[in-house]
Amino acid sequence: MTQLKQYFPILEWGRVYNKQTLMSDLVAAVIVTIMLIPQSLAYALLAGLPPEVGLYASITPLVAYGIFGSSRTLAVGPVAVASLMTASAAGAIADAGSASYLAAAVLMAAMSGLFLLIMGLLKMGFLANFLSHPVIAGFITASGILIATSQLKHMLGIKAHGENLLQIVQSIIAHIGDTNLYTVMVGVPVLAFLFWVRSGLKPLLVKAGLSDFSASMLSKTGPVFGVVGTSIAAYVWNLGEHGVSLVGEVPTGLPGFVMPDFFHPAWRELLVSAVFISIIGFVESVSVGHTLAAKRRQKISPNQELIGLGASNIASACSGGYPVTGGFARSVVNFDAGAETPAAGMFTAIGIGLAAIFFTPYLAYLPKATLAATIIVAVLSLVDFSIIKKTWQFARSDFVAVITTIGLTLSLGVEMGVACGVFASLALHLYKTSKPHMAVVGEVPGTEHFRNIDRHEVLTHEEVLSLRVDESLYFANAGFIEDRIYALLEKYPKTRHVILMCTAVNEIDLSALESLESINHRLKDSGIKLHLSEVKGPVMDMLQKTHFLSELNGQVFLTHHLAVNAALNESRSGSDWTI
Amino acid sequence: MTQLKQYFPILEWGRVYNKQTLMSDLVAAVIVTIMLIPQSLAYALLAGLPPEVGLYASITPLVAYGIFGSSRTLAVGPVAVASLMTASAAGAIADAGSASYLAAAVLMAAMSGLFLLIMGLLKMGFLANFLSHPVIAGFITASGILIATSQLKHMLGIKAHGENLLQIVQSIIAHIGDTNLYTVMVGVPVLAFLFWVRSGLKPLLVKAGLSDFSASMLSKTGPVFGVVGTSIAAYVWNLGEHGVSLVGEVPTGLPGFVMPDFFHPAWRELLVSAVFISIIGFVESVSVGHTLAAKRRQKISPNQELIGLGASNIASACSGGYPVTGGFARSVVNFDAGAETPAAGMFTAIGIGLAAIFFTPYLAYLPKATLAATIIVAVLSLVDFSIIKKTWQFARSDFVAVITTIGLTLSLGVEMGVACGVFASLALHLYKTSKPHMAVVGEVPGTEHFRNIDRHEVLTHEEVLSLRVDESLYFANAGFIEDRIYALLEKYPKTRHVILMCTAVNEIDLSALESLESINHRLKDSGIKLHLSEVKGPVMDMLQKTHFLSELNGQVFLTHHLAVNAALNESRSGSDWTI
Repeated sequence: MTQLKQYFPILEWGRVYNKQTLMSDLVAAVIVTIMLIPQSLAYALLAGLPPEVGLYASITPLVAYGIFGSSRTLAVGPVAVASLMTASAAGAIADAGSASYLAAAVLMAAMSGLFLLIMGLLKMGFLANFLSHPVIAGFITASGILIATSQLKHMLGIKAHGENLLQIVQSIIAHIGDTNLYTVMVGVPVLAFLFWVRSGLKPLLVKAGLSDFSASMLSKTGPVFGVVGTSIAAYVWNLGEHGVSLVGEVPTGLPGFVMPDFFHPAWRELLVSAVFISIIGFVESVSVGHTLAAKRRQKISPNQELIGLGASNIASACSGGYPVTGGFARSVVNFDAGAETPAAGMFTAIGIGLAAIFFTPYLAYLPKATLAATIIVAVLSLVDFSIIKKTWQFARSDFVAVITTIGLTLSLGVEMGVACGVFASLALHLYKTSKPHMAVVGEVPGTEHFRNIDRHEVLTHEEVLSLRVDESLYFANAGFIEDRIYALLEKYPKTRHVILMCTAVNEIDLSALESLESINHRLKDSGIKLHLSEVKGPVMDMLQKTHFLSELNGQVFLTHHLAVNAALNESRSGSDWTI
Repeated sequence: MTQLKQYFPILEWGRVYNKQTLMSDLVAAVIVTIMLIPQSLAYALLAGLPPEVGLYASITPLVAYGIFGSSRTLAVGPVAVASLMTASAAGAIADAGSASYLAAAVLMAAMSGLFLLIMGLLKMGFLANFLSHPVIAGFITASGILIATSQLKHMLGIKAHGENLLQIVQSIIAHIGDTNLYTVMVGVPVLAFLFWVRSGLKPLLVKAGLSDFSASMLSKTGPVFGVVGTSIAAYVWNLGEHGVSLVGEVPTGLPGFVMPDFFHPAWRELLVSAVFISIIGFVESVSVGHTLAAKRRQKISPNQELIGLGASNIASACSGGYPVTGGFARSVVNFDAGAETPAAGMFTAIGIGLAAIFFTPYLAYLPKATLAATIIVAVLSLVDFSIIKKTWQFARSDFVAVITTIGLTLSLGVEMGVACGVFASLALHLYKTSKPHMAVVGEVPGTEHFRNIDRHEVLTHEEVLSLRVDESLYFANAGFIEDRIYALLEKYPKTRHVILMCTAVNEIDLSALESLESINHRLKDSGIKLHLSEVKGPVMDMLQKTHFLSELNGQVFLTHHLAVNAALNESRSGSDWTI
């Protein structure tokens, strides 16, 4: 039963579901539904897919997540980055609008779902930890810029395309002459309206007497007014005949069951992109989920999240939708609106389903510029360059990771940007650990503590070289440490005892052991003893499996203080230790 | 001048060259020359190149290394693994024996030389540290098996080929019916002779009255007797007409200048292989160089070695040779024979040059089976499976790296084997550091030292949770550590103070800082204080650049003892600290 509850969190929260929870969830669902309708349509546009696909991706995935997801408040559905990545992957193998393009998008959802599910069953959630905060921040900022720029064409009513920022900008400039003034006259006001809604509507509503909560929630539904207003305008002034792109006829009704086309000729090419979408979507979801769960002292399980998101994507594919994940903005709204369980998401699914049945006829007159404006406002709120300054001040390695990620995302696309960002951060970490900090230490007078001679006033003895290696000993730094020890012996030629203080040595591998053996032999030849102090339990366990301790030309001491005293006693008395 | 001496080590040792050094170097050169002639021919055969190319690769590279190399005794030239890799790369784009194949081999030497030179000038020698000992050992063992198996066809006089062990074995089995008995009758005795020379000749010579040194050196020249003996046999009994493959006519004279064909249509495909050959050759050279230098208290400089090997490969390419590197066996012989400076290598080059002028006519009758036997004996001495048992006993991660390297080298080839071995060892290291060891610690009675409560009898206090994190804090483990701390707080619910003992924290990055901030906020909310103790200088410098220390809901203590005492005082008195 516990096992079952772990894989089906619905069994956990479903048992304590009551009327009060139902009311909270229903309120949240209404608000999220109103917010999600324009977003679903907009992100489908961004992905190059028909608008109804956005709606379909907002129905079954929410139900699946409600059953399998471990976060109480995460709201899944189409999101900006996954839409951009879908467009980029599907666009590489088919023309937007073709049946093959749609099939590719659906297949990507299916592959992404299977991949996430397998990762979850194999408990591989920890892999997400290898995406560092700077890489994520850089990547979100850069993709926000990419997405916002890509939407300018819809605001101007021109054709433009490109895989990276330069191409998009060049393409827009090349076509700028085709700008449709009617489209601009729809797009710019609605963009201004949406920006104003974001910051200006709520204070106004509060001033008008609404409670803080109502004002906040109502202002989240702002985009719907943009949608309604511009649709009416397009209908009344017949803007479609003046060259304003409209959404056009949208099929009415719920999606049917769709079998993803696993025999799509391009499945191999889509696989890598599906993996990228999965990992990035997962990391995004988990970080939102963590943040929200922490606020209510709840927990999410990364491995169960993989299963929840996997199930959502499979559900999306089976209803003709495209890749989904947990959205940042809508999850926060869901949380703030009082959602208490994933049932809120299921009610949202019902809301979107009703919209698909009753609301779609009215979408025919919706200008695409309105949807583009919705996207621009949403993604520009994610753009945050402060991470560049922050990392510059904090650490060069984090800075390089951010710059690499932003630069390559803008110039080579999202997948290359993230991959190179992760690679750069790992490489920098490995580089640092391959040239570890090593300090010659001395005793803080009157204590048994040892500190760096360059930073503290400490006692040292010319015959005893106390050395602290600030890193685990492993293959990448074994040679470096060996060389440094020999160099230090040249600097301190009177040394008769080298004591390695191992407080920071958390691991030792075979390469490092062989280096220690060779240091031991070389020091022995020179009549110098090698001692170890403060060796940790796990490292001592490793050493005891080998001959190293029996061959060691010295001793292992529990504390560095004992080691130094023993070395000094021997030097003074001239006698040898007994081991 | 110091700068110049650094880049031209010949200026250093050349100034103190005297008659005694000259004699030592000459003796070593004679012995290495006799050893190198059959090896050069054999490795050219292994590389699928005409025999004279092996000789050419043993002339100019030795002179170039003598000028630029930093090891006094390293003997460069064609080696087994580089020959195998050359055959594999050139064979992928042209047929062995064709002009395009030869041009590809020469181009690989040129590209490899340039790559090494650039690496050296950029001081990238440290990259070799990322090849761990287990990966190198596994790779050498597996390539020894691959090479020995690939030579069986020459021993049997059949045609066989393949990229991996399975293919080679299958191909040999498929052609076993074509076995030429005359070839077997040449190959098997010479193989037995060479194995015997390796272990049985020296004791015999000592018994015959030779000094230990003379016996040892003379036994190294054994292969030459195999070459001479089988050549005479082939001539006398006209074995060529009985289907025994002979080396055939070899051009006489020194190599002319060859301009490497940088416009070879396949240079892109060869580039990756050239990089692999460079790195593997470099690692092999440096490890031999290090070992020999240490015996005489000399030093080698990895970055200068890159320049030396780079110059050697460029020199090889310019004289129509193929990739070279420092050979293990011949360097040891050179060292044992008393070589004192790289001049020994230059004299060896003269020796090989004389052989190319005067000796080549006699090679026409040399059976290829003899060369194959030379190769088999040489590479089987490198095969050593003890690394598997050693790593199994020592650490699972080293074991996985070895098994991956051996398995993939045998099944997918040398490049994939090494690449995946390096990847596996790095991934395992990162995995380990992403789930670091964390110990709850307590005070060793009567001391100021703190140890793991699970391993030692120590004092603890229910309101103070002392926690030692045995790893640097960085993005890959930030989330894990956060979760572990929360889990420990559930286990120790009376905790009022959490003290992180940072003895093993060598680095902190932005992701980890953000985790610390979030831990700090969450503990603050629960009325628990967070303290740090024994923070190292470099980490403290990092923290001081941020707001963390001013927001910290606790203090930073120089020693863990002070931290615990302060926490206990506060708990007992009920009063608050002043910061």
